[in-house]
Amino acid sequence: MDIAQLVDTQLSSLVEQRRYLHQYPELSFQETETYQYILKHLQKLTHFHIREQVGGQGIVAEIKGNGGRTVAFRADFDALPIQDEKDVPYKSKVPGVMHACGHDGHTSILLSLLSILDEHHAELNGNVSMIFQFAEELAPGGAKPMIEDGALEDVDVIYGQHLWSPFNTHEIHCTTGPMMASPDMFEVTIIGKGGHGAKPHTSVDSIVAMAQFITSIQTLVSRTINPVDSAVVTIGKVAAGNAFNIISHEATCTGTVRTFDPAVKQQIKDGLEHELQGLALAKGITYKLDYTDGYPSVVNHSREYEIVKRAAERLNLPFAEAEPMMIGEDFSYYLQEKPGAFFLTGAGHADAKPHHHSLFDLDEDSLATGLKMFLAILMEEGILNVDSIS
Amino acid sequence: MDIAQLVDTQLSSLVEQRRYLHQYPELSFQETETYQYILKHLQKLTHFHIREQVGGQGIVAEIKGNGGRTVAFRADFDALPIQDEKDVPYKSKVPGVMHACGHDGHTSILLSLLSILDEHHAELNGNVSMIFQFAEELAPGGAKPMIEDGALEDVDVIYGQHLWSPFNTHEIHCTTGPMMASPDMFEVTIIGKGGHGAKPHTSVDSIVAMAQFITSIQTLVSRTINPVDSAVVTIGKVAAGNAFNIISHEATCTGTVRTFDPAVKQQIKDGLEHELQGLALAKGITYKLDYTDGYPSVVNHSREYEIVKRAAERLNLPFAEAEPMMIGEDFSYYLQEKPGAFFLTGAGHADAKPHHHSLFDLDEDSLATGLKMFLAILMEEGILNVDSIS
Amino acid sequence: MDIAQLVDTQLSSLVEQRRYLHQYPELSFQETETYQYILKHLQKLTHFHIREQVGGQGIVAEIKGNGGRTVAFRADFDALPIQDEKDVPYKSKVPGVMHACGHDGHTSILLSLLSILDEHHAELNGNVSMIFQFAEELAPGGAKPMIEDGALEDVDVIYGQHLWSPFNTHEIHCTTGPMMASPDMFEVTIIGKGGHGAKPHTSVDSIVAMAQFITSIQTLVSRTINPVDSAVVTIGKVAAGNAFNIISHEATCTGTVRTFDPAVKQQIKDGLEHELQGLALAKGITYKLDYTDGYPSVVNHSREYEIVKRAAERLNLPFAEAEPMMIGEDFSYYLQEKPGAFFLTGAGHADAKPHHHSLFDLDEDSLATGLKMFLAILMEEGILNVDSIS
Amino acid sequence: MDIAQLVDTQLSSLVEQRRYLHQYPELSFQETETYQYILKHLQKLTHFHIREQVGGQGIVAEIKGNGGRTVAFRADFDALPIQDEKDVPYKSKVPGVMHACGHDGHTSILLSLLSILDEHHAELNGNVSMIFQFAEELAPGGAKPMIEDGALEDVDVIYGQHLWSPFNTHEIHCTTGPMMASPDMFEVTIIGKGGHGAKPHTSVDSIVAMAQFITSIQTLVSRTINPVDSAVVTIGKVAAGNAFNIISHEATCTGTVRTFDPAVKQQIKDGLEHELQGLALAKGITYKLDYTDGYPSVVNHSREYEIVKRAAERLNLPFAEAEPMMIGEDFSYYLQEKPGAFFLTGAGHADAKPHHHSLFDLDEDSLATGLKMFLAILMEEGILNVDSIS
Repeated sequence: MDIAQLVDTQLSSLVEQRRYLHQYPELSFQETETYQYILKHLQKLTHFHIREQVGGQGIVAEIKGNGGRTVAFRADFDALPIQDEKDVPYKSKVPGVMHACGHDGHTSILLSLLSILDEHHAELNGNVSMIFQFAEELAPGGAKPMIEDGALEDVDVIYGQHLWSPFNTHEIHCTTGPMMASPDMFEVTIIGKGGHGAKPHTSVDSIVAMAQFITSIQTLVSRTINPVDSAVVTIGKVAAGNAFNIISHEATCTGTVRTFDPAVKQQIKDGLEHELQGLALAKGITYKLDYTDGYPSVVNHSREYEIVKRAAERLNLPFAEAEPMMIGEDFSYYLQEKPGAFFLTGAGHADAKPHHHSLFDLDEDSLATGLKMFLAILMEEGILNVDSIS
Repeated sequence: MDIAQLVDTQLSSLVEQRRYLHQYPELSFQETETYQYILKHLQKLTHFHIREQVGGQGIVAEIKGNGGRTVAFRADFDALPIQDEKDVPYKSKVPGVMHACGHDGHTSILLSLLSILDEHHAELNGNVSMIFQFAEELAPGGAKPMIEDGALEDVDVIYGQHLWSPFNTHEIHCTTGPMMASPDMFEVTIIGKGGHGAKPHTSVDSIVAMAQFITSIQTLVSRTINPVDSAVVTIGKVAAGNAFNIISHEATCTGTVRTFDPAVKQQIKDGLEHELQGLALAKGITYKLDYTDGYPSVVNHSREYEIVKRAAERLNLPFAEAEPMMIGEDFSYYLQEKPGAFFLTGAGHADAKPHHHSLFDLDEDSLATGLKMFLAILMEEGILNVDSIS
Repeated sequence: MDIAQLVDTQLSSLVEQRRYLHQYPELSFQETETYQYILKHLQKLTHFHIREQVGGQGIVAEIKGNGGRTVAFRADFDALPIQDEKDVPYKSKVPGVMHACGHDGHTSILLSLLSILDEHHAELNGNVSMIFQFAEELAPGGAKPMIEDGALEDVDVIYGQHLWSPFNTHEIHCTTGPMMASPDMFEVTIIGKGGHGAKPHTSVDSIVAMAQFITSIQTLVSRTINPVDSAVVTIGKVAAGNAFNIISHEATCTGTVRTFDPAVKQQIKDGLEHELQGLALAKGITYKLDYTDGYPSVVNHSREYEIVKRAAERLNLPFAEAEPMMIGEDFSYYLQEKPGAFFLTGAGHADAKPHHHSLFDLDEDSLATGLKMFLAILMEEGILNVDSIS
Repeated sequence: MDIAQLVDTQLSSLVEQRRYLHQYPELSFQETETYQYILKHLQKLTHFHIREQVGGQGIVAEIKGNGGRTVAFRADFDALPIQDEKDVPYKSKVPGVMHACGHDGHTSILLSLLSILDEHHAELNGNVSMIFQFAEELAPGGAKPMIEDGALEDVDVIYGQHLWSPFNTHEIHCTTGPMMASPDMFEVTIIGKGGHGAKPHTSVDSIVAMAQFITSIQTLVSRTINPVDSAVVTIGKVAAGNAFNIISHEATCTGTVRTFDPAVKQQIKDGLEHELQGLALAKGITYKLDYTDGYPSVVNHSREYEIVKRAAERLNLPFAEAEPMMIGEDFSYYLQEKPGAFFLTGAGHADAKPHHHSLFDLDEDSLATGLKMFLAILMEEGILNVDSIS
C-alpha cells in the first residue's frame, strides 16, 4: 500500500467533514458545537486516548505505538465574523460567521488522519498526538492555554499546516527561521463632546478627529520605520455615532500591528501613542489606547523544516521556500516549547479569493494533499511505514 | 383671573406629564405608546373633537368657540436615539432612546392647554386646533403627511414653540424671516476590497479611504463657499468592519448638511459628489451617495412674529431677536401653508447641556412659561379673554 | 456746468495716468517712483498746500476754501507681488509686480480731482484734503503712520472708494456698520530633522508635517466657529526644501486669517497654536508661529453712508447695500478717528478676473464714475456747488 | 614597503585636497572649477594618459603597466544644494552649496592613488584607469554619458567606494547582488485658480490641494505595496505662492521614489498618477506629473565582492555584509557593462550627522583607509605588488 491508496479511503469523508463544519462555523472561544462534533468522531475510535477540555475547548487525542518518539499534529477549528457570500450548497448557515480561513479543512484532515491511524495502529513505531485547538483567530488564542494545560507533555516534535488559497493546489511552502509575523491588536477610543449636528462650535467632533488619526498614522509605516524593515498597521473596524444629525461624543477604531522585529513593533506602538497625544492637543479630544501584544513570530526549526521538505519530495509535490508573511499564528507558542515546523499547503491559485474574504473558498483537492503530507511526515519521522501496510 | 393663576392650576400636571413622557421616549415613526398616552388624555375631555391617525401617528384635537378664526398650536412628541446618562428619578427607561430635545415638554404644555380650554370652553371667541405631531426629528417628518391629511384645514394661523436649554429660562426669542436652516441627510457607502489585515496590497482599504473623505470634505465649508454664507457638514455616524484584523470591504458614513440658501446647499451637494468621484480614482474604491433633501427653512411671518413679541411683553418676559440657527424644523411646512410663527422659549442657561446631548435636561420652570405664552397668544389673537374668566 | 461736463475735461488724463502707473507698479513700502510721480503732478498746481513724507511715503495735499468744514479723500498707490500676465499695451513693465488691485485707478482719480479743484478753487465753500497713501496691501500699512503724522488734523470727515472689478461698472455699493474684515497674517515654521530622502526613519519630515497641518486647520473654519459667523484661513505661500532627494529640515507656510468679530479671530488664533502643539507631539517636530494682527474692520458711519447713497442717486448710478466682505482695508484706521465712509465702485462685471489675479484689469470707464462720485460727495457735503461753475 | 607606508606618504595631501574641494563645492553638471582642479593635478604627472571632456565634464586618466588586465576606479566630484552650517575652517565658501555627501573625499583618494601609481609605474603588472565622474547626485548623472563616450573601453573590472559617515571609520561594508536602490525623481505641478486670499469660493486653492496630495500618497507605501517589499516616497521640496494673502494659482512639489524591484516601482508610479487624477476631480485642479526614471539598482558581482572582502581582510579592517540601502548610485551603469563591486568605507559613527545633512562631515581618517582599500584591491587583482616596492 502507498500513501495515495491510504488517502483514497478517506476522500469522501475529507470533503464531507469539511463541508459540515463549513456550514456550522463558530466564533473563537465559542466553538461548543464544533467541539462536540470532533468529540463524537473521536468516540467512535478505539485506540485513541482522549483528553477533553484541554485549556478550555481543546481536545488532545493520543495513540500509542510500539515505543518510539511522540509526533504531534495540530488543527485549529474556529471561524471568523464574516458573512459568507458564496453561492454553494455548503455555504455557512450562521449569519455573519464563516470559515473564511480554512480551519474547517485543517480539522477535517486531522479527523481523517485519526481514522487511518486508528485502523493501522498496529503499525505505529511511535506515538502520535492530535491537538484540536480552539480560538486561533483571536488573541490570546487557544494554543497557550492548551500548552499550559499539558497539551505538549511527552511530545517530542510538532507539525502544523495551513491550507492556503492563493497558492496553487498541491504546492508546499516552508522555510527555516521566521515564517510568520507577530500580530498585535489595538483599540483606540477618541472622546470628544457630543452635541447637535448643526452646532459644531459647541461640540468636539470625535469622528473628524478619528478620521485625521487614521490618515495620520499612515506615516508610521511610510515615514518612521526603516524601509527595508516590514510593518503593517491596519484599522479593521470603526464605529461612532447613532444618528446622522448628532455629533458623536466618542469614536472607536480597532486594528492590528504586524511586525517581525520587536524593535519595529515598539516603534509603531510608541508612534500610535504620540499620534494620539498630538491629536488630543490639536483637536481638544481625550483618548484611550488599549494595545494587546499578539502571538510571537512563528519561527521554524531547521531539522523539522527539512522533514517537511523531504515529505513534499517523497510525494512529488512542488516545494517552495516560503516568503515571510505578515500574518500571525499561535502555532508560534508550540514552536517556543518544542522543535517543529509549520508549512503552507496550496489550496487554490493566484486569483483565488484571499483568506478572510467573504467569497473565500478552498480547492477541496488540497484536503487529500494535506493528509498525505502528515502521513509522509510520519514516514520521515520513522513512526509509520506505510509501504509495509498490506 | 389672570394667565398666571390659570397656569398655576396646571403646574403639577405639567411636570408630571413631562416626566412620564421622559421616561418612556420613542423613536420617530415608532411613537405608539406616546400616541396612546395623548389619546387617553384627550378622551377624558368633553369639548374637543378628536381626529386620530392624522397622516400616520398624528392627532388633531379641535375645540369650537363662538365663531371667529381658528388658531392652531403644534407640539411634536418623538425622541432621539441617544442613551440617557442623567442621574435623575425620571431618567429614560428605554436603553438608547431619550427625550434629548425637549419634545416631552412641548407635548406636556399642549396637554395642559387642552385641559384649560376644555374647562373654559365657554369663553372662547374662536376655534383652537391642537396638532400633536409625530416624527419631527427624522426626515421626511410628520408635518408633511399631517398637512396632506388635512391637519391645517380651517386653520387661519399657526404657532409653535421650542423649549431651548441654552437660553435663560423665561426668555423668548423670535424673528421675522429665516429662523432655521434646511437640514439635509446623506449616506455614503465606500466599497473597497476586503482581505486579511496583514495583506493591504491585496485589498483596497475602505476605512482609510473613508477617513480621507471625512478629512477632505472639511474644505467644502472652509474653502468652497462664500465665507459670509453659512453651511454645516457633519458626519454623525460611521461604521465599518467586524474584526480588528480584517480589512473592511466597505465603510459607511452618514451625515447632515445645513444651509439657509438653496444655492449653497447645491454647491455642497455637488462637492460631496466630486470628492467621492476623486476618491474613487485616487484609492480604487467605488461608492454610493444617497442624498435626502431635508425640511425647508423655517420662515416666520411678520404679523405673527409681532403677536409673539406682544405676548412676551404682556407676560413681562425678556424678548430677544433670534439669530438664524443651523438646525432644521418641519414646522417650516406649516408656515409654507399658513401664516404663523415659531419661537424659542428659554429653558436653562448658557452652560446647560445642549440639545441632543446625553446629559440634556430642561429647566421645568419653562413649562409654565411655554403654557403662558400660548395663552397670551390666544389673548393677542382675540380668541380668549383670560381676564374675563372668573 | 454739471459734474459730467467737469469730468469730461479729465477723461484722457484719467486713463493716461492710470496706465502710466499700471506699467510701473511698486511693492508696498517701496513706492519711491510712484511717490515722485504724484509729487511732480502736485507741483504743477498752484492752490494746494503739499505735505511731503507724511508718516513715510505719504503725501497730503490740502486746498483751502472760503471757510467751512474739511472733507478728506484718500487714494492708495501700492501694487502687489504678482506677475502681470495680461497682453495689453499698458502691461506691467516690472517683472513679478503688478497693480492687480486697482490702486493705480484710485490714484488717477485723486490726481484728476486735484486738477479740477485747483482750477475751480474759487468756488470752494470749505476745505478739501487729498491723502495719497502708500502701503495699503501690507500690514502694518500706511494709514496708521500717516494718521500719527497728522494726516487727519483739521479733517472733519473722510471718504474712500475702491474700484471693484466683479461689480458692474457704475454700480455703487456701500453699507453702514461693518463692511470689511480684519485681516491678520501668520507665518509658521515647522522644524523637523533633515536627512537623505531614502532614509525617512533617520529624519523627521517637515514637509509631511506641514501638509498635515494645512489639511488639519481646515477644521478651524469648518468645525470650531459658529456657522453663522464668518472666518477665512488661507495659506498663500509655502516653501520647503532645496532638492528633490533631501528630506527638508524645515518648512514654512504663510497665510492670512480674516474675521469680523474679535472673539472669532481669537478662537482661530488659539486654534492655530493648538494644532501646532499637537503636530509637534504627533510628528516630533518643533515649530514657530508668528501671528501679526492686521487692520481692524472697516466700519462705516451712518451719516456719511447716507451722503454716499445720495451722491450715487444724484448721479443716477445703481446703488446696492454692500454685503460685508472678508478682505481688509487700512481705511479702517481713518474711520476710527473721524466720521466717514468707504464705498465700492463697480469696474467690470461678474465674470471679470478677480482682484489679485494675474489677469486682473479694470474697466477704465469706472475712472470717470469714481471721479464723479467724489465730486457729488463734495456737493452733498456743501463744499462745492458744481452747478454754479460756469 | 607595505600599503600603510605607501599611504603615509599621502596623508597630508589627502586631507589638503579634500579640504580644498570642500571649500569650493559645485553643483552637479556645473563642476567647472573642480574639473580644472583635477586636471591641473593630472598635468603634473608624467605616466598617465589623460582624456578630457569625457561625456561632458568627465576625465579618464590611464596608466599602462607591463601587459595584463585593466582595473578601473571611479570617484565622483559633484556637491549638493545644501547650506553648509558647520563651523570649521574648511567650511564651504559657496552659499547654498556643500559637499554634504563626501565626494570631495572620493576625489582626494583617487588623486592620491594617481600620485602613488605615477611614482611606482614601473611596478605595474597591468593597467589602471581612473574615472573622475561629474554629476552623480543628479539624474541622468555623469556615468551614462561617460560610458557612452568610451570611459570603460578596455576596462576589465571596475571598483568604486563611498565614504559613509554613519559607519565606524575603517569598517568596510559590501554584499553581492542588490546593494543600492533605483532612485526616481518626480515633479508635480498642481494648477488651481488664483485669487484673493479672502475669497476662497472664487478660487481653487492649489496649496490645500497639494497638502492633501502629500498626505494621501503616504498610503502608497503604507497600504498598496507588499509589506515585505521596500519602497520610499519622499517629497523633498515644495513651493507655492508669493504673498500671504493671495491664493496661489499653482503649487509644485518634487520628490523621489526608491525601490529595488521594478514592479514595485511601477506600482508607485501608477499610484502617483491615480492620486492626482482623483485630486483633480475632488478639488477641481489640473495637474502635471513629470516622472524621471533614475539610476538602476547597484548590483555587485560576486568575484569582485570577494576581492573587496579579501582586500579588507588583508588590511585587517572589520568587514560587514552590507544591508541593501534605499539610496541610488549611478555606479550601477558601470556594473551593467563590466564586472565590479561598490563598497562602503566607514567614515564616522552611528551618531554622526547623516549624509545630505547641513552639518555633515567626514572623519578624515577614512581617507587613508579608502586609499588603502584601492591599493589592496590592486594587490588582490595582481596588478601591483606593493611588497616588492623598495
